[in-house]
Amino acid sequence: MSDSAIDAEPGTVYLVGSGPGDPELLTVKAKRLLEAADVVLHDKLPGPEIIDQLPEARREDVGKRAGGERTPQSEINERLVELAREGKSVVRLKGGDSFVFGRGGEEAEYLAAHEIPFEIVPAVTSAIAAPAVAGIPVTHRDHASSVSFVTGHEDPTKDESAVDWEALAATGGTIVVLMGVGRLPDYTNALREAGMNPETSVALIERGTWPGQQVATGTLETIVDVRDEEGISPPAVTVIGDVAGTRESTVDFLQTDYGAAESEGEQ
Amino acid sequence: MSDSAIDAEPGTVYLVGSGPGDPELLTVKAKRLLEAADVVLHDKLPGPEIIDQLPEARREDVGKRAGGERTPQSEINERLVELAREGKSVVRLKGGDSFVFGRGGEEAEYLAAHEIPFEIVPAVTSAIAAPAVAGIPVTHRDHASSVSFVTGHEDPTKDESAVDWEALAATGGTIVVLMGVGRLPDYTNALREAGMNPETSVALIERGTWPGQQVATGTLETIVDVRDEEGISPPAVTVIGDVAGTRESTVDFLQTDYGAAESEGEQ
Repeated sequence: MSDSAIDAEPGTVYLVGSGPGDPELLTVKAKRLLEAADVVLHDKLPGPEIIDQLPEARREDVGKRAGGERTPQSEINERLVELAREGKSVVRLKGGDSFVFGRGGEEAEYLAAHEIPFEIVPAVTSAIAAPAVAGIPVTHRDHASSVSFVTGHEDPTKDESAVDWEALAATGGTIVVLMGVGRLPDYTNALREAGMNPETSVALIERGTWPGQQVATGTLETIVDVRDEEGISPPAVTVIGDVAGTRESTVDFLQTDYGAAESEGEQ
Repeated sequence: MSDSAIDAEPGTVYLVGSGPGDPELLTVKAKRLLEAADVVLHDKLPGPEIIDQLPEARREDVGKRAGGERTPQSEINERLVELAREGKSVVRLKGGDSFVFGRGGEEAEYLAAHEIPFEIVPAVTSAIAAPAVAGIPVTHRDHASSVSFVTGHEDPTKDESAVDWEALAATGGTIVVLMGVGRLPDYTNALREAGMNPETSVALIERGTWPGQQVATGTLETIVDVRDEEGISPPAVTVIGDVAGTRESTVDFLQTDYGAAESEGEQ
């Protein structure tokens, strides 16, 4: 790391979520900050439509290192501090919302510990938006008075690692799993073992709001087969609960800018 | 309701969330649709800064009826259909995200049943954004691998009305309560009875991202007194879980456009 830290005021780091992927689902503020930043640190998750709009000279892809493996969070943290100490205005851009399984909390702590001013710019989370554009409300007065968000790939370094699927099933609310394509068999099984009805509706939304969005639906019992038949692959969001079944009654009139074949699409 | 329905194609109804209140946290798409709509149906929850930007001739406040009581959802549904059948482009604008305790699901079903095309435009939900701008990440690798959202005032017409606070406590994740100022004593009590540690951090964020945002913090045991001492009133979001305590270590370097007194504010 360079040692060019000087007496000047450090720049501000903006922890910005990009939303689910459609550039029109950026917030007005995120768009303004992306246009004004000296440098944007990002990985692949904001999606091609947003990344490609950023001028190459002002962006750094911190998703993978030269060797192909994932950049450790510690390196990203250090790079944020280094750039801010050079007086730069820095946007740290994450897919979705930085504070929903996005490690924004850790970045904020590191910045504060190094006396770097930072601002948090909330975003549209894919956990809500991907189901929404597919016609699935994560809450519904008749079906779900709570909704819980979890990730499908847990931090393997955590000792008490297990998400409590039994407690989640017991809430009776909707469960939304992010990054949960690979471990779909594990957690659908855990939920059935916890006593959840195998007929419970489940939907998979791949690349929600990206070009080529795909939606597949089934039940707790059938969804693994559906995933394999339809070829659903990451990134995708899983919605478990009666709300996933309401889509049937509305999808014929649902307009969309995205790939779902079912709608006639006015725009 | 008028009977002027004619052979023409119906207009599209856009179910649009306004985000938490800051006009810069509108999505680019919401802003475009608000500018282009023939008519915008809204209540007070999008907040004064957004409502006041809409030309009066193109907006209808459906929050309250002349007598002062709340407009029934059925009347709002009918009005949406009526306007669409007149060929109008209609934005139904809700505070936060329409599909998170916003009755967007019911509106979508009603529109589909009446063969009105509709589109869903997801938004930044206050449930995530209000804590975020106060420096609280709703998930954090060290503190919470799930987050659940519930409302503090439940639909009293539901027979099996109770949110299962015991199951929510058992998840071990963050709990975010929307519209939960009034019933704060009830559910903090329920969570303690369910075995949640009374020292668990709790934060209240009033008017998150509005001018005059206020943040108050305590524990499951003290938060009701804190609410009363600080005069926290609706609309507010309650965050229950260790993440609410992480704010302490970052707030000195947290920049904000909003009212929180703690930050020095560069912007």
